[in-house]
Amino acid sequence: MADNKLSIEEMAIFCKKKGLVFPSGEIYGGLAGFFDFGPNCVEIRNNIKREWWRFHVQEREDIVGIDGSIITNPIVWEASGHVENFNDVHVKCKKCKKPNKIDKSEIGKARCECGGEYEVMGDINLMFKTNIGPVEGSTAYLRPETAQLIFADFKLVAESSRLKLPFGIAQIGKAFRNEISPRNFLFRTREFEMMEIEYFAHPENSKKCPFIKDVLKNEMNVLSSEMQKKQQKPKKMTIEKALKDKIINTEWLAYWLATEHKWFTDLGAKPDNFRIRQHLKDELAHYSSDCWDLEYNFPFGWKELEGIADRSDFDLQQHIKHSKKDLSIFDQETNKKVVPHVVAEPSLGVGRAFLVFMFDAYNDDKKRGNIVLNINPKLAPIKAGIFPLISKPELEKLAKEIHADLKKYFNITYDRSGSIGRRYARADEIGTPFCITVDFDSLKDQSVTIRDRDTTKQVRVKIAELKDILRKLIDGEIKFINI
Amino acid sequence: MADNKLSIEEMAIFCKKKGLVFPSGEIYGGLAGFFDFGPNCVEIRNNIKREWWRFHVQEREDIVGIDGSIITNPIVWEASGHVENFNDVHVKCKKCKKPNKIDKSEIGKARCECGGEYEVMGDINLMFKTNIGPVEGSTAYLRPETAQLIFADFKLVAESSRLKLPFGIAQIGKAFRNEISPRNFLFRTREFEMMEIEYFAHPENSKKCPFIKDVLKNEMNVLSSEMQKKQQKPKKMTIEKALKDKIINTEWLAYWLATEHKWFTDLGAKPDNFRIRQHLKDELAHYSSDCWDLEYNFPFGWKELEGIADRSDFDLQQHIKHSKKDLSIFDQETNKKVVPHVVAEPSLGVGRAFLVFMFDAYNDDKKRGNIVLNINPKLAPIKAGIFPLISKPELEKLAKEIHADLKKYFNITYDRSGSIGRRYARADEIGTPFCITVDFDSLKDQSVTIRDRDTTKQVRVKIAELKDILRKLIDGEIKFINI
Repeated sequence: MADNKLSIEEMAIFCKKKGLVFPSGEIYGGLAGFFDFGPNCVEIRNNIKREWWRFHVQEREDIVGIDGSIITNPIVWEASGHVENFNDVHVKCKKCKKPNKIDKSEIGKARCECGGEYEVMGDINLMFKTNIGPVEGSTAYLRPETAQLIFADFKLVAESSRLKLPFGIAQIGKAFRNEISPRNFLFRTREFEMMEIEYFAHPENSKKCPFIKDVLKNEMNVLSSEMQKKQQKPKKMTIEKALKDKIINTEWLAYWLATEHKWFTDLGAKPDNFRIRQHLKDELAHYSSDCWDLEYNFPFGWKELEGIADRSDFDLQQHIKHSKKDLSIFDQETNKKVVPHVVAEPSLGVGRAFLVFMFDAYNDDKKRGNIVLNINPKLAPIKAGIFPLISKPELEKLAKEIHADLKKYFNITYDRSGSIGRRYARADEIGTPFCITVDFDSLKDQSVTIRDRDTTKQVRVKIAELKDILRKLIDGEIKFINI
Repeated sequence: MADNKLSIEEMAIFCKKKGLVFPSGEIYGGLAGFFDFGPNCVEIRNNIKREWWRFHVQEREDIVGIDGSIITNPIVWEASGHVENFNDVHVKCKKCKKPNKIDKSEIGKARCECGGEYEVMGDINLMFKTNIGPVEGSTAYLRPETAQLIFADFKLVAESSRLKLPFGIAQIGKAFRNEISPRNFLFRTREFEMMEIEYFAHPENSKKCPFIKDVLKNEMNVLSSEMQKKQQKPKKMTIEKALKDKIINTEWLAYWLATEHKWFTDLGAKPDNFRIRQHLKDELAHYSSDCWDLEYNFPFGWKELEGIADRSDFDLQQHIKHSKKDLSIFDQETNKKVVPHVVAEPSLGVGRAFLVFMFDAYNDDKKRGNIVLNINPKLAPIKAGIFPLISKPELEKLAKEIHADLKKYFNITYDRSGSIGRRYARADEIGTPFCITVDFDSLKDQSVTIRDRDTTKQVRVKIAELKDILRKLIDGEIKFINI
């Protein structure tokens, strides 16, 4: 399907055409880096968030979730280092005098659009500022990451949840960065939604992961900083080998890289479109001692999908220093108070996850003559379409009854307009996995035909069994072929 | 249970103690009007949002959802009138010279804390401002409501979703208001999450609601503006009577007021803690021609829970004027292009909904000797607790197996610490509806005991049937007494 791969611009056009994504305030020309999501996109994004939460929070005993506010006490961002360090460089073109912002790594390398050299004027912070309070308010920031809320609330959450090390705190929420040049559609935006975990371990035991056995056999394409220096290509290997050969230095990073890869592929993303790449020294953020990216093969190259950083105890120590509060917790095993280390910080944008699932699902099926979105039924915005075969009152009546009944449990649609083929095509294009047709036989045998999006195969099932079969198909408990 | 009713301060203390809600950045003294939500609160809020979405979007054929950005093109807020009109009044105390902000309706009535009279200095806008873009950015706003995103995207959404009038567009998302004095815990905050619908109807048919029959028999406590002028008390009546006597002027407002009341009471809120109150002329927002509030009997008085405004075509016309775009849609029935009217705008804060469900669920059970949170199982953060009767390896092994199996489907906990009574009490206090105890008989008969939170009654069920029974109990398909 590689030849099917769309450019990011073509994906943006497809998303617009299908009512999935449009520039925010488009009737006024939009606003660079801000997007609105239409009906089916909201469903897909909600499904992504729900599956992420189920996998990372609900199904685990060691992770709980929080929901922090977007604007918090500004000292949080002083303590975290963001006020001082979360900067790009303010430059001015020596030729055309136009101001701009560049990344620190671009100093001396970047040039103006006009070709002129840049003069460095100073630093510019990437956080959006605002003012709070009556009349002359005090400066506050829109959070540029959700993580700091987890650190600031760390002790309250750890103690009220009776968590024991190692444990994680997860959060899904919006964050904002005043990016110099938002680009590549949903890949780099100024407003975005993140799904993050801070995973804490005992400082004396921060290299060993008790769950490592679960992922040792997982295979990944690995690109270490050493391999990058030698200009080598990534190597496919098991997590077991990567750890044995000391390519990945901690079991925790290995565990989380493999676990995140598994989350994507369990939901239908293509394993070989992923690789893991270690950050080079000069790429590391100010708070990070080691970081690997789970990268995805975007049409504009291999790019960061999910950074998994080792933040050590940098953040908690900063907050202890600035708040003068004791943020250590009591560890039952060692019988001591400890400030845990963040051994991994899986951090993923909902927008990037959406792009991955869309690119890996998009299939321009020449034989069928339409696009087929082969998206996992759990993520599909609409789970089933209910179609009366033709526009006859008795067929429509039965089809509407089935629709009304199933709608209580699933997001489904009723469609009676156009030929059956036209309706199948419409369902295919938005990724509806199952189409249910009510025909004249249905009136006699109380059965309907289910058509499978991916194979176009059809089976006949009893209306009475439809709800259970649909639930099992969506949850992946049964395969279509085994109905 | 009226004598049980907590003050709002006591509710805040209970929420803090249970790790549900804490001031954002509390280690730095918090920030007025901003809150963070702990693990079980995130679950309750997610459940509230999911149930709202299921009831208002998924189960209906006439409403679709969108998710607009928090920051959008600032012209949206000029067109909507918010830049010009969304103001409070800037005042200065004639005595102590301290500046403050007051509501327009308080001019001439309000006084400073020091007792001094206020001098009016001018208007202050309630929107938070920020700057976007490189170096000298342009002014943008954090949205003070989600509604405008629905209006700006109206035509794109209506046409790509093939909607026919009447229809609604729903949205859940955060909004921000620089309130003068955030107060009453989660009741008035500066950052809050809204669940909104803009419901559009044909301008020539904007008084009739095709679904009115569904709610005619619903009873509500009604307080019209006329009744307020005459200082009358609210009267309990059916929607049918309120319409017949022209107390409520449009079927649409009546329909949505009753529907929203039903949503709350279906989820366990107490019917008589609600009333509907018509806005007086001087209370109406600049965009609204009529508005009723669904009010709730908070411990600090009857207050707005959900405003349901008739916004006519004010917003769409403003956007047509400012964008110079044709935002009319083609209506098949009349065969004409029309700019629809917003006949109702149900608009509810997640924080206020959370308070309602908490107040109506909170029960200081003197007989049991602990708090019982009688919250609807659909909203409960934890659906079941799995308890081995005592700490014996064979009991713990079986209990853990049951826990691991059910965790795939429900948010449940495993608890082995303390006596069974202690564990029941802990479960009661956070509203866990079902406690499942594994005892020595379980090893022989492969059965466990389920204990019902509300009645403390217990029944014995087969482990093999546990998943199905639990699902039906949570969904309300069966009652505990009928297992």
